[in-house]
Amino acid sequence: MKGFDTICSISTPQGIGALAVIRVSGKNVFEMASKLFKNADVFKTLPANFVKQFDIYENDILIDQTMVAKFAAPKSYTGEDVVEISCHGSKYIQKKIIELLLQNGARLAKAGEFSMRAFLNGKLDLPQAEAVADLIDSQSEVAHKLAINQLKGNFSARIKTLRTQFVELAALLELELDFSEENVEFADRAKLIELLHSLKEEVTKLTESFKLGNVLKTGIPVAIIGKPNVGKSTLLNCLLNDERAIVSHIPGTTRDTVEDNFTINGTNFRFIDTAGIRLTDDEIETFGIERTFKAIDKADIILYMIDISNTSLEDVEKELIFLENEIDFIHKKLIIVANKIDQLNELPKHFNDWEEYDIAFISAKRNVNIEEIRELLTQHIDQNNIADSTLLTNVRHYDIMLKIEEEIYKIESGFTQQLPTDLIVIHINSILNLLGEITGEITTDEILDMVFSRFCIGK
Amino acid sequence: MKGFDTICSISTPQGIGALAVIRVSGKNVFEMASKLFKNADVFKTLPANFVKQFDIYENDILIDQTMVAKFAAPKSYTGEDVVEISCHGSKYIQKKIIELLLQNGARLAKAGEFSMRAFLNGKLDLPQAEAVADLIDSQSEVAHKLAINQLKGNFSARIKTLRTQFVELAALLELELDFSEENVEFADRAKLIELLHSLKEEVTKLTESFKLGNVLKTGIPVAIIGKPNVGKSTLLNCLLNDERAIVSHIPGTTRDTVEDNFTINGTNFRFIDTAGIRLTDDEIETFGIERTFKAIDKADIILYMIDISNTSLEDVEKELIFLENEIDFIHKKLIIVANKIDQLNELPKHFNDWEEYDIAFISAKRNVNIEEIRELLTQHIDQNNIADSTLLTNVRHYDIMLKIEEEIYKIESGFTQQLPTDLIVIHINSILNLLGEITGEITTDEILDMVFSRFCIGK
Repeated sequence: MKGFDTICSISTPQGIGALAVIRVSGKNVFEMASKLFKNADVFKTLPANFVKQFDIYENDILIDQTMVAKFAAPKSYTGEDVVEISCHGSKYIQKKIIELLLQNGARLAKAGEFSMRAFLNGKLDLPQAEAVADLIDSQSEVAHKLAINQLKGNFSARIKTLRTQFVELAALLELELDFSEENVEFADRAKLIELLHSLKEEVTKLTESFKLGNVLKTGIPVAIIGKPNVGKSTLLNCLLNDERAIVSHIPGTTRDTVEDNFTINGTNFRFIDTAGIRLTDDEIETFGIERTFKAIDKADIILYMIDISNTSLEDVEKELIFLENEIDFIHKKLIIVANKIDQLNELPKHFNDWEEYDIAFISAKRNVNIEEIRELLTQHIDQNNIADSTLLTNVRHYDIMLKIEEEIYKIESGFTQQLPTDLIVIHINSILNLLGEITGEITTDEILDMVFSRFCIGK
Repeated sequence: MKGFDTICSISTPQGIGALAVIRVSGKNVFEMASKLFKNADVFKTLPANFVKQFDIYENDILIDQTMVAKFAAPKSYTGEDVVEISCHGSKYIQKKIIELLLQNGARLAKAGEFSMRAFLNGKLDLPQAEAVADLIDSQSEVAHKLAINQLKGNFSARIKTLRTQFVELAALLELELDFSEENVEFADRAKLIELLHSLKEEVTKLTESFKLGNVLKTGIPVAIIGKPNVGKSTLLNCLLNDERAIVSHIPGTTRDTVEDNFTINGTNFRFIDTAGIRLTDDEIETFGIERTFKAIDKADIILYMIDISNTSLEDVEKELIFLENEIDFIHKKLIIVANKIDQLNELPKHFNDWEEYDIAFISAKRNVNIEEIRELLTQHIDQNNIADSTLLTNVRHYDIMLKIEEEIYKIESGFTQQLPTDLIVIHINSILNLLGEITGEITTDEILDMVFSRFCIGK
């Protein structure tokens, strides 16, 4: 336990509730907290990991009857002495207790400061601390799964393995270096290049996983496109209203209205604002306009919507050719939504036989077959796969991985150009440093600020 | 401990935060909660009042690493076995843990159900339970003080004293009754009437305290009146903006924008919407119109605002005579706010000499002397007095007290009309019943519903 000053913060969500928790951590926390209680001696002798009722007084005025938990260093979240005060959830009381703590020498914790101390005291490595923030932010089953994997240390373990392999690579090279004066080149260079290749593959796999990892965390971006009056807003409202009905059955868990976000089978989808989709159809710009293309550009999945009661197969095929010329569909999924089936007696045969495209026949207005769209949206996402594999989800890690990729290229070309071994070793060392930045073995104030400032207050 | 079923709820405020607390209470709570933990055996042998980390799993998927506190009946808030799960404050996790508890046989707690159990298990009497809800709602120092007093049992003690005195009164009457056949009238009847008078005084003091008690709890109603363009909106914004600046310095304690509420020296004031005050002055109706009178009617304090740069003493006196004819100023406080002093070189002497009225000379536009209004608003509120005395703050108690007053009148007139003693005793018994309804010694489902439905979920 390092001798940090004592910090305090409300750790529960803002607002009024049955109860609120105020967390206090630091070297003088027991001494300081006891000043708030009339029965200070009882608190001082309270064993660690015990909860007991303590009345908090300001002068002789009772502020609240609280339950207080005591945690002793190093067995606490921060690794320091910690006190958690569970008070009645009135804002007045929460504020008053914080004020009393401040008067007795604590200071307000900065965002993420408790977790930063947990990291600095060796309770969590940096990816685990980052996972805590992700966990709190997680809105969907998949985002939660990714965060939990990282919190359990799976990602850190993978990085450590990678590090060991680079150390091995360095060792092999150092061995060459020792004999370099004798001008011997080792037969092992083949093995060395092979090792480098497998490492490169591993790193590339990780950087490539970031795109998926990141959208799974923040929501897979979906664009709904199509001509005016095909029913885009109606479909969007359909999908979002279902979502609202689903998520609100447990009091207290109703989501903040994250506009245009919804979850299917645990995966979060996020609608790209196509500037007009939420307006009445009159105001929606015509298909093909620049803004639509911007939305398509940002999206991973395109719902291309047509009015099947009023469109010929030829028209659609013409538009599709146009779309396919403009858009890179290798990295995007296209789903055709044939709307307004309620206005037909039977499905047009030529559309039905269409096997090139994923197509859903629906009526957004009558809420018919919306389930088909949900199925198509989630078709290619294998959740079990996500749980087992380790996806790169964090921008900071991704940026570092890109730098590692660059260093690997430099090592490769070093080999090709038969550069002196010691010049190559420099790049391996810089990779080892970069890996250390991910796990937090190497940190700067700048890195810590970047990581912890995105936490919420009280964590 | 009664054998109630197991209930669960999120007890912290809604939303995302560093942590959230889920409370579970009931006869099977330890058995049920342990089903969520991998190390169930450890949980079962965990001593009461202990906190320990337990990982919550759904099948083999880790949902969260939580801190779990165990409380054993009767030493818990509800008086039952209780488990409090402190989890990461993600909405997904909160929802998931609640779902797991429901799957294992718990049900969602209704609003106030934990506190209702505390009452039914004898941990709190009814006024104390009601004080818990008031405490959570308290937004100001005074409202908090009133709730704390009631929670400490001060109010209940006073009701119990009252009850003892009525029992004494009944005993004296019963004594008469025993000898009634001998047609003896006791000399003690004088003492009896004396006792009744002092009880009546006590009850009247309580019912009369309700008006103050209630407004102190919910905010003292203030109306700002005056002709168009005197600066009413500017003054209101002045007072409210100061308030907003004051309350927001501790993260997490920023108040929900309770429109038109502000606190001075711990007392909460609430502006009556005078339909137009928040609009531009152009839209404000002229002084004297019906809606203004409605606002005056609801207010305890009237800020009567004049433009001193543009009004003669005669005009003001004329308006004041008009006001005093229309309004009952015995029960309302009138403060004259002379605005726009920035447009004068010196204060008009005739106004300055005025001693009949409380008057503040200000410039709302330049934020000058607003402090004077604050002082006048709080002048007659003695906070120490509030802390020591017991004010009636609860509508339910007030309604019962009014019924008790009626019964006292009946007893009085019974004495006057020399009604048979047994007819008088009936009214005393009904008073004893009514007092029992306040403390909760006598309850019905209807009373319990009324009391606990106004609680927040999770308390």
